[in-house]
Amino acid sequence: MKDDLYPSRSSTQPRTYERKDPVFYGKGTSNCPISSQDLQGYIENGVMVLEDMFSAEEVASLQTAANSMRQNANTLQAETVVTEPSAERNDIVRSVFAIHQQSDVFANIAASERLSDIARFILNDDVYIHQSRLNYKPGFHGKEFYWHSDFETWHVEDGMPRMRALSMSVMLTDNHSQAGPTMFVSGSHNSFVSCTGETPDENYKKSLKKQEVGVPDADILTHMVETGNIIAPTPPAGSVVIFDCNTMHGSNGNITPLERTNAFFVYNAWSNRLTTPYGGTKERPEFIAHRLVDRPLVAASKKSIQAA
Amino acid sequence: MKDDLYPSRSSTQPRTYERKDPVFYGKGTSNCPISSQDLQGYIENGVMVLEDMFSAEEVASLQTAANSMRQNANTLQAETVVTEPSAERNDIVRSVFAIHQQSDVFANIAASERLSDIARFILNDDVYIHQSRLNYKPGFHGKEFYWHSDFETWHVEDGMPRMRALSMSVMLTDNHSQAGPTMFVSGSHNSFVSCTGETPDENYKKSLKKQEVGVPDADILTHMVETGNIIAPTPPAGSVVIFDCNTMHGSNGNITPLERTNAFFVYNAWSNRLTTPYGGTKERPEFIAHRLVDRPLVAASKKSIQAA
Repeated sequence: MKDDLYPSRSSTQPRTYERKDPVFYGKGTSNCPISSQDLQGYIENGVMVLEDMFSAEEVASLQTAANSMRQNANTLQAETVVTEPSAERNDIVRSVFAIHQQSDVFANIAASERLSDIARFILNDDVYIHQSRLNYKPGFHGKEFYWHSDFETWHVEDGMPRMRALSMSVMLTDNHSQAGPTMFVSGSHNSFVSCTGETPDENYKKSLKKQEVGVPDADILTHMVETGNIIAPTPPAGSVVIFDCNTMHGSNGNITPLERTNAFFVYNAWSNRLTTPYGGTKERPEFIAHRLVDRPLVAASKKSIQAA
Repeated sequence: MKDDLYPSRSSTQPRTYERKDPVFYGKGTSNCPISSQDLQGYIENGVMVLEDMFSAEEVASLQTAANSMRQNANTLQAETVVTEPSAERNDIVRSVFAIHQQSDVFANIAASERLSDIARFILNDDVYIHQSRLNYKPGFHGKEFYWHSDFETWHVEDGMPRMRALSMSVMLTDNHSQAGPTMFVSGSHNSFVSCTGETPDENYKKSLKKQEVGVPDADILTHMVETGNIIAPTPPAGSVVIFDCNTMHGSNGNITPLERTNAFFVYNAWSNRLTTPYGGTKERPEFIAHRLVDRPLVAASKKSIQAA
């Protein structure tokens, strides 16, 4: 077993560990690409919402690209397409992974200065895309996604050493509070919740549909929610929700007719690249956790995004 | 087949019928027990929220009664206790029916002037309790309840002739927008959504856990939500949500740690008592749809509620 600051799935007792890494790695706020108020909120809550990041025209072109990927899912790398969990609905696409490798539009968005400069600033390092995906939450039958810290999975199953990564969710549709928006527990990023249970082989084949290991303890969650708050941002299309890799989040199901779609990019610090999984399991496939990355992301200018 | 203004589950094509009954049966607003603004909102939306209807002390005594019924569910009439649908959680109580017959506290609340006067005023008739229940939505694993019109079921399965009934949900806990609050489609009470499919025998045994017939068509629902709005009131404990018997409603699941409990009373007009079921099926049992009622509800004074 290698040295592990954040052990999980190795004990029968759930517990929490103090976070041993900064949330904001920068040295000050000069050249900060966001307001200092937004930055402060992010440091405190582990999540922030930036509205009006993409224009209506840009959103329309992203939506077109997203719909086209969903409709032509059979032309994509098969394993990158994840369908709804229930047997009756397993023809409905829930997520498409590795979108920055399968679409120029999403490659450009991921590299765009608007997004990547924020990641570089907060992580104070070069960055690369650890994971990207499109999430479609369908109307009427969208399933819940139980509480989890992404870092817990990325650490145990992918070998991400430290908490030096963040996620950006680009809203391609307006959000409604009852359509199963992502919920965050504010302040939860400051504790690492060590989970019980062992990781089965090829766990990702199940966990992408329904997570059953790496599930935080109910009493710990209850305490976190009593200490923090549940924040469920529902900003309009064109907004970006940015959250720390260790912020506890999840979402309820959606019986409303309202669909929601977002594009999701995980920026990891170049110095925090994957090692062997801390849980001792086999590496997960490249499309979920990129390892074959030979250089950091090069920021694309604003112009090149619009051309996409 | 008897004459039926609101046919449902008798055709393979879903459709809507215009409502043929008033929402407000009264002749004016003299002696109106609620504000005319609240009344107007109820007529337009099919739902209204009245805050501060019960004091903190009254809520505490109702909560005590509710918790005691849940904890001592084995002392109640067995068929009135409904558990969560999934096999792993079928020891968790989801609802208790006929609470006004099994608890003095809830009998007093149901008869209280504060509630029953509003029902008598809106329905412009004597009233009685058609159904009562406690709903417990547990934290972490609360299941969704799909969209439905109560009247559709009460008409087809219970023989309720006309839309002259309303429901009151008394909030015993604070509500959170992400804890699966009841959602209403505003304006939906003005159309009757005729559903497809036939009613199986003893359908209630399944439908109390998960409704599979009497389910409105997705395109009709989408149209209703485009025309109206989804209203998901989250008022504090002690509030009462009142809605028309034909207002389309449902709720999402709840993965938050936050539980919610409400006491639910359906007031039917005395002149609108049950006949034989319009769907031609056997009458449902008394605890779900009261028939053995020999006189209208007698309003209890404020004093007698507090004494409960």
